[in-house]
Amino acid sequence: MLSLSKVFNAQTVLKNIIRETNVVRAHGIAPDCKLYLKPENLQFTGSFKVRGAAYKIAMLSEEEKAKGVVACSAGNHAQGVALAATKNGIKSLICLPDTAPISKVEATKGFGASVCLVEGCYDDAYQKALELKEKEGYTFVHPFDDENVIAGQGTIALEILNSLDDIDAIVVPIGGGGLAAGVAFTVKQINPEVKVYGVQVSGAPSMYNSIKKGEIEALDSVSTIADGIAVKKPGINTFELISKYVDDIALVSDEEVASAILSLIEKQKMIAEGAGATAVAAVMFNKFPLKGKRVVAIVSGGNIDVTSLSRVIDRGLLNSGRSTSLLIELIDKPGQLKDISRIIADCGGNVTGVHYEKGNTESVNGCFLRIEMETRDFDHVNLITQTLRGEGFKLVE
Amino acid sequence: MLSLSKVFNAQTVLKNIIRETNVVRAHGIAPDCKLYLKPENLQFTGSFKVRGAAYKIAMLSEEEKAKGVVACSAGNHAQGVALAATKNGIKSLICLPDTAPISKVEATKGFGASVCLVEGCYDDAYQKALELKEKEGYTFVHPFDDENVIAGQGTIALEILNSLDDIDAIVVPIGGGGLAAGVAFTVKQINPEVKVYGVQVSGAPSMYNSIKKGEIEALDSVSTIADGIAVKKPGINTFELISKYVDDIALVSDEEVASAILSLIEKQKMIAEGAGATAVAAVMFNKFPLKGKRVVAIVSGGNIDVTSLSRVIDRGLLNSGRSTSLLIELIDKPGQLKDISRIIADCGGNVTGVHYEKGNTESVNGCFLRIEMETRDFDHVNLITQTLRGEGFKLVE
Repeated sequence: MLSLSKVFNAQTVLKNIIRETNVVRAHGIAPDCKLYLKPENLQFTGSFKVRGAAYKIAMLSEEEKAKGVVACSAGNHAQGVALAATKNGIKSLICLPDTAPISKVEATKGFGASVCLVEGCYDDAYQKALELKEKEGYTFVHPFDDENVIAGQGTIALEILNSLDDIDAIVVPIGGGGLAAGVAFTVKQINPEVKVYGVQVSGAPSMYNSIKKGEIEALDSVSTIADGIAVKKPGINTFELISKYVDDIALVSDEEVASAILSLIEKQKMIAEGAGATAVAAVMFNKFPLKGKRVVAIVSGGNIDVTSLSRVIDRGLLNSGRSTSLLIELIDKPGQLKDISRIIADCGGNVTGVHYEKGNTESVNGCFLRIEMETRDFDHVNLITQTLRGEGFKLVE
Repeated sequence: MLSLSKVFNAQTVLKNIIRETNVVRAHGIAPDCKLYLKPENLQFTGSFKVRGAAYKIAMLSEEEKAKGVVACSAGNHAQGVALAATKNGIKSLICLPDTAPISKVEATKGFGASVCLVEGCYDDAYQKALELKEKEGYTFVHPFDDENVIAGQGTIALEILNSLDDIDAIVVPIGGGGLAAGVAFTVKQINPEVKVYGVQVSGAPSMYNSIKKGEIEALDSVSTIADGIAVKKPGINTFELISKYVDDIALVSDEEVASAILSLIEKQKMIAEGAGATAVAAVMFNKFPLKGKRVVAIVSGGNIDVTSLSRVIDRGLLNSGRSTSLLIELIDKPGQLKDISRIIADCGGNVTGVHYEKGNTESVNGCFLRIEMETRDFDHVNLITQTLRGEGFKLVE
């Protein structure tokens, strides 16, 4: 049975294993409320996952410890288990699908785990992990649906309540639900007045659907940039705890998550992964009644690969009018690129790409000109497009 | 005269104005030494500049405070002065060249300053600020060459020495030299055994050249991604203090700075601006004898605009083999894109861009195919290029 004393015990056990991340005030992200962040992206291994894994492992019997642990994950849980096992001086084996990015495989090895690459997808790796558990006697460390794992994640709530007075609400990302279950349970035992809100992404709403329906429901597929919470089926324990202790759950879109990642970069100089930015996204886009409240959003992790980060930034620049792509239909006569270049330069746009394309233009001699440029905001984009139109150019997009 | 008691006094004065940023251990960035970061990018206004400005302003007479302050900057100093003045309840006017990015203008206004946009470049804005100082009786807050500003920056050294024992060295970015002068002076008064190393970028080596020459020397021009330290001429006070107290200065290249920014993102989930990453770059690329040492690198700021950040990331991905651009010369016959696509897919490359270009190929019917793709590392790039060559394709780049 999960109990508050277990969470307090976890806090003591974790003292020398994890980093106590400092709650920080986040200015300028959500002007309607007083927003604070609990930056677990700055945790060792780049996510909160090490907490639950380390407490689970510390509570194993000497016999179990001697045999070692096995886990299955392509992400934060893998690194959490690896570091937790290493810090406890025991062996860990992580099963990963062979399609996992090499950076994640290397990071997991870097924290001291052995890695077993399994042909296929996550489910194949999971089966392999269970098989090894049976055959070799390893203890399986579940990523979320385990009482000690949940108690470990609950220590985040203790740290939040300890560092800030008069909190009105805590907003928590939900994947399998270990973090939300641990935080909500702990908060409600200590101060039931504090609201706990959960957030999922619309591309992976398994807990959201299950809570709304009142029973666990699995999804056939998930698709989101928040890969850390792309979970098809809630846990039995986490579903029960979240039903009981979380006040409400909302969904955010991938676009909203991308905006939140960009805001965290610009305002907080901080990198969050998709899953890690969902709680901030929910606050930014007013998914809960938080106007005027003191709110803590948990930034659960920061392990986004730079390729994805680069895409998110590019998307964010487009979405905020700071980069623009125009398609202009030209009559194929000399001097047009010169005129367009002049107009854009006079308006203060900074051209970063130019492509000519033949295509199905009105005139047989026509062509399309694709211009990519850096702009200041949507007003600036409008100024440029209106000036171009005013000088007779035909904008297709 | 600068004195240690002034720095201690500054620490007391700044207590309720600035954030004491926590020194953090940085794993995996510089394996040869034990690296810690002093993350002033997480300071209010996103850089250390608020310290010096706030102490300078706090020390003004009541009469001076009543008249207000003026400063000239397109960057971190502007925001520092604005916030420091607002927190002290006095007026501030910041002169900016009208070419300054709108985001910086907005940020400066956001901290409570009035902004005066001056036609021209930085030097024009500087002249305007001096003119206003004379005419209106404002106090001019110099970005670095001022004893109280230097004392304010020195508080960083107190915080570092207070939070870590047995430090061997502190590495500090140098622009005008206010930060390095304050830190080096303070450190050497308290513990002269701790080395203090300064870092400039090779595109703006004004202090480096001056120190090597033994007298102040101005540069005609500067060019670097580290715009925060692109200073043409060292200060008189800062030159003297740095000559006396800084153990050595080294230069880093823009490419090295870009790598450091990328490492800070990946390993520390932290955004640094170019200037802010120079000390980390110097440690990463072994500019000082730090092997096996306990080293603190000051990350001086994080105000990089996302457009530049996006470029730095793209450059970093190219430099580490995680993205690649190939130019292939084709004979213009059917099926070639199909074959190339197959080879790349079989090798595990992920195509992100394709362009056909006619051009000066060997055969009149030839054309160039530009392929952009995501790759894992340079070994992966080599695998793909060798496989393409092995199947008879002619790679131009």
